[in-house]
Amino acid sequence: MAATADPALSTSLTPSDRVAVIAGGGELPRELVRGLTAAGHAPFVVIVGDEDPSGLTGGEYTVLHVEEYGRLLPVLRAARATHVVMAGSVSRRPRLRAIRFSVGLLKLLPQIVWALGRGDDALLRTIVGHIEAAGMKVLGSHQILPDLLADKGALTRVRPSASIQPGIAAAFQAARAIGALDIGQAAVAVGRRVVALEGVEGTAAMLARVGDLRASGRISMAGGVLVKCAKPGQELRADLPTIGPDTVVDAHAAGLSGIAVEAGRTIILRQGDVVENADRLGLFVVGLDGSGR
Amino acid sequence: MAATADPALSTSLTPSDRVAVIAGGGELPRELVRGLTAAGHAPFVVIVGDEDPSGLTGGEYTVLHVEEYGRLLPVLRAARATHVVMAGSVSRRPRLRAIRFSVGLLKLLPQIVWALGRGDDALLRTIVGHIEAAGMKVLGSHQILPDLLADKGALTRVRPSASIQPGIAAAFQAARAIGALDIGQAAVAVGRRVVALEGVEGTAAMLARVGDLRASGRISMAGGVLVKCAKPGQELRADLPTIGPDTVVDAHAAGLSGIAVEAGRTIILRQGDVVENADRLGLFVVGLDGSGR
Repeated sequence: MAATADPALSTSLTPSDRVAVIAGGGELPRELVRGLTAAGHAPFVVIVGDEDPSGLTGGEYTVLHVEEYGRLLPVLRAARATHVVMAGSVSRRPRLRAIRFSVGLLKLLPQIVWALGRGDDALLRTIVGHIEAAGMKVLGSHQILPDLLADKGALTRVRPSASIQPGIAAAFQAARAIGALDIGQAAVAVGRRVVALEGVEGTAAMLARVGDLRASGRISMAGGVLVKCAKPGQELRADLPTIGPDTVVDAHAAGLSGIAVEAGRTIILRQGDVVENADRLGLFVVGLDGSGR
Repeated sequence: MAATADPALSTSLTPSDRVAVIAGGGELPRELVRGLTAAGHAPFVVIVGDEDPSGLTGGEYTVLHVEEYGRLLPVLRAARATHVVMAGSVSRRPRLRAIRFSVGLLKLLPQIVWALGRGDDALLRTIVGHIEAAGMKVLGSHQILPDLLADKGALTRVRPSASIQPGIAAAFQAARAIGALDIGQAAVAVGRRVVALEGVEGTAAMLARVGDLRASGRISMAGGVLVKCAKPGQELRADLPTIGPDTVVDAHAAGLSGIAVEAGRTIILRQGDVVENADRLGLFVVGLDGSGR
């Protein structure tokens, strides 16, 4: 990853393209909106209801609650979107009873109900399928801002020690295994022992749990590592594993020595701040290849 | 499993045998002490320090903190134990710096340090190895009280519906996968989606997390199931997955419809109370065969 304040914009967009950003929570949608706007591609923003809209309402936008999924395609069509990028976390799933039904949605409903019962990846693949069937192209955030992806190797002054490698390997294996089951993308190892696995609670809540376990004596060894990696066969256009400056602070608070992510398939938000936080707190941040090294 | 107030005692013990119970937290060590005492095999109890000693101090006993592991074999030898059973949870791992060193312990230390860095199963196998190398026989709780093991089929008035079977299958697969990595033994599925995996926090904390996720809207569907199963190749003489009356209450509080456990390899504590709680709260409790059915 090139360290730059002005991230490179993918050249795959032409001036006539109209990009819609479906914006969940977190910083990623804001980075996309900033990057697209800076490159002259003023995006249309669909703010997922319940998520913080700040930084997203500078241009054209609309707010859509998760129960209004049936309006998504009409809204995208009305905005004449040619490309769609989904970015950021959606902190809750739709309440089926609260969904507003329309003829269009009724046709999609069986797939949605099926996907809601499965993991995130199944749900995201269903949404990608609906958008592409409507003639728009779905891009991943990293296809718009290639600099977001983690490179291989250490970003930080501190590098992972030899003694932490078995922990990295164990957590990588565990994160891959639960990814294969479409459950989560992250695991924490202390020593060679995997102590926590990510379910739907997300990485921050998992790290808080590790801190609690350490405070209570259930984890007796010092240090440890957070590993995030993509799911095998992951839908790369949505829900790539992501870390940011807060992840570093949370990992430090949980008593960990560092963070390892899968290079090329993990997004690092605000890399400058990630490195600054890590260097200040004495943590390593390292990109691993697909075999976890 | 035979429903009985007076659980059958395994016939593998002879009157000259002397059983030591290494008693962690929870009810299992108490059931063992009661069952052995009722059958005339007054046990010697090693109470793991920090755990509640009530119900364990009726006969001969000693208290050993986890840092005093080096005293375990001398204590067992002094009590002339011929058989040892380890039962109950140990809520924290030893702090290496607080361990009291002895010549005997120094010899064992490399193995202990190795095992402490791994999962519970590695640690328990190491302890079993030490005890058996000292000439004592290690038994599983279920070998002393065979009625503790779950039978196949529903124990409760409510039976799992056909619609919950995909969730049971998904959580069983997930629990097996993390068991294969010696991380945990339990998973929760809501719909067909696995939402939580057990790390070192234990089943009760995982169920509390599921309740929180539901309250916050991160889990939108009603119902769900807790599945517990043994690890593939599990050391059956220690740390079999266990449920008890509190597990039923916790599962209900998390909004789940029921509990599925692996028959023959899961311990059900106080089965009468488990069934009573489940029937009162409308949950199912079912034993699955090794393929998760």
